[in-house]
Order: sequence, then C-alpha cells, then structure tokens
Amino acid sequence: MSVQEKALEMHRIWKGKMETVAKSKVNSREDLAVAYTPGVAEPCKEIAADQEKAYTYTWKQNTIAVVSDGSAVLGLGNIGPYAAMPVMEGKAVLFKEFGDVNAVPICLDTQDTEEIIKAVTYLAPGFGGINLEDISAPRCFEIEKRLQEILDIPVFHDDQHGTAIVVLAGIINALKVVGKEKEHVKIVVNGAGSAGIAITKMLLDYGFPAITLCDKSGILGPDSPDLNWMQEEMVKVTNLDRKTGTLADAMVGADIFVGVSAPGIVSEEMVASMAADAILFAMANPVPEIMPDLAKKAGAKVVGTGRSDFPNQVNNVVAFPGIFKGALEGRARQITIPMQLAAAKAIASLVSDEDLNEDNILPEAFDPRVADVVAQAVKENI
Amino acid sequence: MSVQEKALEMHRIWKGKMETVAKSKVNSREDLAVAYTPGVAEPCKEIAADQEKAYTYTWKQNTIAVVSDGSAVLGLGNIGPYAAMPVMEGKAVLFKEFGDVNAVPICLDTQDTEEIIKAVTYLAPGFGGINLEDISAPRCFEIEKRLQEILDIPVFHDDQHGTAIVVLAGIINALKVVGKEKEHVKIVVNGAGSAGIAITKMLLDYGFPAITLCDKSGILGPDSPDLNWMQEEMVKVTNLDRKTGTLADAMVGADIFVGVSAPGIVSEEMVASMAADAILFAMANPVPEIMPDLAKKAGAKVVGTGRSDFPNQVNNVVAFPGIFKGALEGRARQITIPMQLAAAKAIASLVSDEDLNEDNILPEAFDPRVADVVAQAVKENI
Repeated sequence: MSVQEKALEMHRIWKGKMETVAKSKVNSREDLAVAYTPGVAEPCKEIAADQEKAYTYTWKQNTIAVVSDGSAVLGLGNIGPYAAMPVMEGKAVLFKEFGDVNAVPICLDTQDTEEIIKAVTYLAPGFGGINLEDISAPRCFEIEKRLQEILDIPVFHDDQHGTAIVVLAGIINALKVVGKEKEHVKIVVNGAGSAGIAITKMLLDYGFPAITLCDKSGILGPDSPDLNWMQEEMVKVTNLDRKTGTLADAMVGADIFVGVSAPGIVSEEMVASMAADAILFAMANPVPEIMPDLAKKAGAKVVGTGRSDFPNQVNNVVAFPGIFKGALEGRARQITIPMQLAAAKAIASLVSDEDLNEDNILPEAFDPRVADVVAQAVKENI
Repeated sequence: MSVQEKALEMHRIWKGKMETVAKSKVNSREDLAVAYTPGVAEPCKEIAADQEKAYTYTWKQNTIAVVSDGSAVLGLGNIGPYAAMPVMEGKAVLFKEFGDVNAVPICLDTQDTEEIIKAVTYLAPGFGGINLEDISAPRCFEIEKRLQEILDIPVFHDDQHGTAIVVLAGIINALKVVGKEKEHVKIVVNGAGSAGIAITKMLLDYGFPAITLCDKSGILGPDSPDLNWMQEEMVKVTNLDRKTGTLADAMVGADIFVGVSAPGIVSEEMVASMAADAILFAMANPVPEIMPDLAKKAGAKVVGTGRSDFPNQVNNVVAFPGIFKGALEGRARQITIPMQLAAAKAIASLVSDEDLNEDNILPEAFDPRVADVVAQAVKENI
C-alpha cells in the first residue's frame, strides 16, 4: 500500500487525528461539585479579580491554537478551511507529541485579512499562543504583525519563522562543514513569499552581509515590478550591490543557495557556477529545485531538501514544538528575534562535532532531546 | 476542606481540565508521512473535492465548540471571557465524559452580537456543532437564531434548551406522580430570561395550554413595560386570559411552578394558594425560590431544585451530552423541536414506573444509560 493509500485509510480509521480528553474525571457527585458547579465558581472569581490567573487555573498555560484560512496549504494551494483541517490536525499532533503542548486546529471560513485578525483576537483569551499556518503571502505578514501588536500572547507564523529557524540552523552547521565564515559568504534566496522573506530576514538578523533575493522574475531590486509592501522592505536590505538579472545570474559565485520556490528550476550549470564547496537548500516540495545527486555532481558540497528520503531534511518539526513549549513555560508575550536565533543555534548544537558531516547537518525530527533543548534556549532569551 | 477550597486546589493541579491528545502517534518516519506530509495531502484533496468528506477524515465528525462570551456565567454574571474559561472547560469535560463528544472551550473577547455571530461563523468549519453557553439574554436568542440560519451544523444554547428539556422531562414524570393530565394543568414560569423563555416555549411545544410567564415586575402581558423582542413574542402565546398582577397572583390555583429566578421569592402562602398536589421546580442557584421542606409543608407534592443535595435535581448534564452525541452521530444540521421533545421524553422514560415517586422523577446525572438513550431518541427524530 502506498503512503497515499495508507494515509486515506488511516484518516478514516482515526476519525480525526486529535481528540480532547478530560484531565478532571467526574465519577461522583463530589467530582462534579469540584470540577463544575458549585466549585468552579472559585477559579472563575480568582480570574475575574486578576486576569493573569487564567494561566494558573485554565489550560491557557499550555494550549495554543493552530490557525489557518486554508489559503496556502502545503503544495496544494488555496483549498479552503474544510480541506485544510487534516493538515492543521496533523500540526496539532506534532505540537503535542514532540512538545507536549496542547493544540487546537482552527480553520477560519474567511480569507479577509481584517476579519482573520478580528476572529483570532476574539478567540485568544482561552489560548496561550497562536500558531498561524498556511496563510498566503503577503497577507500573512500583515496578519501576524497586527495580531502580535494586539495580543499579549505569542503569535508565530510557522511557515515563515519555523522554516527560517531550521534553515539557519542548517546553514550554521553547513558552514562548519565547508570551513567558511558567515562574514564572507554570499547567499541567494529564491522565492519571495512568506518562507523566502522570513529566511532572508533571519539570515540578515544572524549577520550574513550579502543576500540576494530572487523570485520568478529574477533578482529583486528597487526597480522590480509589482513588489508587495514586504518585498519593498526587503529590497532595501538585500542585493546591496544592486545587481539585476536572472536567478542564474544571481547564483554565479554564490556560496549558499536557499530555494523555497519550484521543482527543477536550478540546473547543474547554475550549481557549477557557484563558489567552491557550495551549500544548497533545495526545499521545493515534493520535488526540489535540483535533485541532491545532480547538485553534488555539479560540485555542491552540502545539499539539504524538505524530504525525509534524502540526507539533511529541513523539517520544521525540530523547531516549532520546542519554541512554543519554551514560550509557554516562560510565559513569553511574543517570540522575538533573539528567541528565534537562540532556537536556531540550539538546533545546530544538537549535531556534535564528531557527528557533523556533509550528510548530517541537522538533528533528526525524532531526536528526543530536540524540543527540550530548543525550549530551554527560547526560555533563556525571553 | 470545603468544596470551594478543594476546587481551587484541584484547578491548580489540573492546569486546565481538558487537554488535546493525539490519536495518530508519530514514532517513525512512516508515521509522520501518513499523518502529516506527504500523506496528509490525500484527505485534503478528498475534502477539497467534496466538503462533506470533512466528516470522514477530520475530527469534525465528533467535535463541538463550547462558546461563551462570559456575559452571564453561572450565578456570577458578566465576568468576561478569561474568567469564564473554567466553566467552559468544565462543560467540555462533561461533554466528553458523559457523551464521548470532543469539546473545545472557546471564550470570545467580544460581547457584540454581530461580532460573536461572525467569529463563530468563521471558526465553524472544523467543528461538528456549536454549544453556546452563558451568553446573556436577549442577545443569546438573536445569536443562536442567526447562527443556526447561517451554519449547516447544529447550534444549541444549553442554558435555554438543555434546561428546558430537563424541566419538561421532570414535569412529564411529576404529572404521573400526581395523576394529572397536561391538558388540564396551569403552569407559572417565573424568570423571563434565556432559561425561562426557553422553558415556556418547550412546554408550549409539548402541548401545555395554559402558561403564565412572570418576571420581577409580575405577570407578563401586552401592557408590560420594557419587554424585549423575545418577551414580546412570548406574551402573544402565554397568559391567554390576560391576567395582570404579581407572581403571587399568578400562582393562585396553578398546578405547576417553574422558577429560574431569585432565591427565596416564593413564600409558603404562595405555595398554599396553588392547586392541590402542586409541583414546584425552584431552580434559583444556589438558593432556590423556596426550600423544598417549606414547599412541602405548604402543600406541594413534588419539588425539584438545581441542587444535588435535595431530591429531584434538575441537571442539564442528563441532556446536553446525549443530545450532541445523537446529533453528531446522525449528522443533524440542527437540533429541532421534535429532537428536543424526544430527548425530554427519553430522559423521563429512564425512571421506571416502579422507581417513580415524588422524590425520584429524574434519572441520576451518573446513570450510565442516559447519554445513549437520549442520543438514540435524538437520532430517531432527525
């Protein structure tokens, strides 16, 4: 049976991948009096007098909402809120299984930016954090920014920051493998949507001096047509030598390529034109920008993809469960850049010097240490 | 330790009375591929092609949202969404424990009718039903009505209909105890908020011909001041002989009194003025309209309250878990009057003729048969 057939069968059997379970059992009148009326009035009154006590007496302390509008789901695109539910349930499973964080999948029946902001603001009181998921760019930037301004709980768009954190972790270790310093490498990021822009920002925040951002129309610069507001922000801080041209032009002499774009768009020639010991993260799903064997044949030293059947899988699951675990435990009000950089370094640190090599730059998704180490790093940087 | 102290301590220990739990474990790469990428794309595509398949592949089939705005919580009043959470978590516990229905507590940070309607509409795709809770009258009528018009999943305001169903069940059995027929009894309902109006409507739907609705200002009629739109609807179908006066006036000669009003407002004299073998449901919380021993001394035959320390507790928990269980299993689009009447009769039927007496008119909250019997009755009337 193929993975696809198995997935359909199992989803039918599971009848939903998550369930809610009572921690307070009600087997007697006394149980009922303690968990419900009349006893429940006591924690209510405590919270009414001091809202912070919501963290003491309710599941807010360890529960997030995984919120999507179904506008940019996996490689499937705008499939809407109903069809997005299996992905949000799956994400909720990963939060719980890897980070021990309760997560509720919420798929919103609106794709209007203002309405999404209002809906999430309204449902926030019962949650300790909001993980935005699979919301299309550039709306996702506005939604995340505005929600984080309004709410006093962390708001995190995993497609942006989770991906960026794991890419940075991979790059930190890949640079050790090839023996290069961040001050001296040139980076090309292809794909100027939510992930590409978040990766670019994170790499800038980490201190990489020379990043060129490309999309379908080639190198982004001040004269590029049809830039959205976030892309306009990005051209102010990338491509500082104001190159123009195609992705192929951008890649000449580059040390690192990060692709969150489309299958097969990087040729062997383009890889061969890069600097020696090139690093490639070819993360288009399910087919990478270039297959790892071809990239290596063309001279690349380290190649990562989004897939589990090749070495160096860039998998957000090493980031988001630990990030929210740490943010909730530390009661962070937001997930700041220092927290994200610390998470990336913590992930990178999980590959020891002895284990580090060109085919092993990131910890396994199932490495049981990951979530706790990431959570600790996040907490220390609140 | 008092119930109150125990409740505070236990709420601290529970750290939230509900949690989310993964039904699909992810212990291997294959698990991850089936529950998440790439396998999860398959159920997504199935649902994108046919929205009904959301019921096959997601938790929608057995999950409801318990939604409140914190405006009318227990006896506590308008304590807001944060302080309402322990009650909504408790309700979610009861749905799960008694009805095996997953329930997610959602407390909305708005008390604007239109905004509540929009927020619930937006979050509905992932849920199979909406249980509204502790929303103040008359907004609750509008919110429930409009949401049921918009959504294709059941919307149920338990404070209204759950209470009404259990009261009707109790009255059905109480009439057997006193040997009266519904066609010949006069009923007084005191309290013209959400519960009182819902009870009145349900008793009318069941076929009681003569109901008088009262509130603080006495008997409601066409000339009563300050009626809200729902109360105006009610005066068209109650108090058909157009009495005016106080609650005491209304109760003279009545066979049944149903109070969802205020502690101690019914005197022994008022009970003594009722018809022989009077039935009283004195459900003000925590102190009833009249204490059962006083009511009995004054001549009442059957007395029920909201409390577990007296006989004949009117407890919604015998209704709402089974009602949603049945509605979800039968994939009802709404919870209609016939379904509600069937639920009331099913609850009444659980007290056998041998067990039925003036101090035993309703099944116990913990009777393990209740939810299934109610669910079955609901399903048969979809």
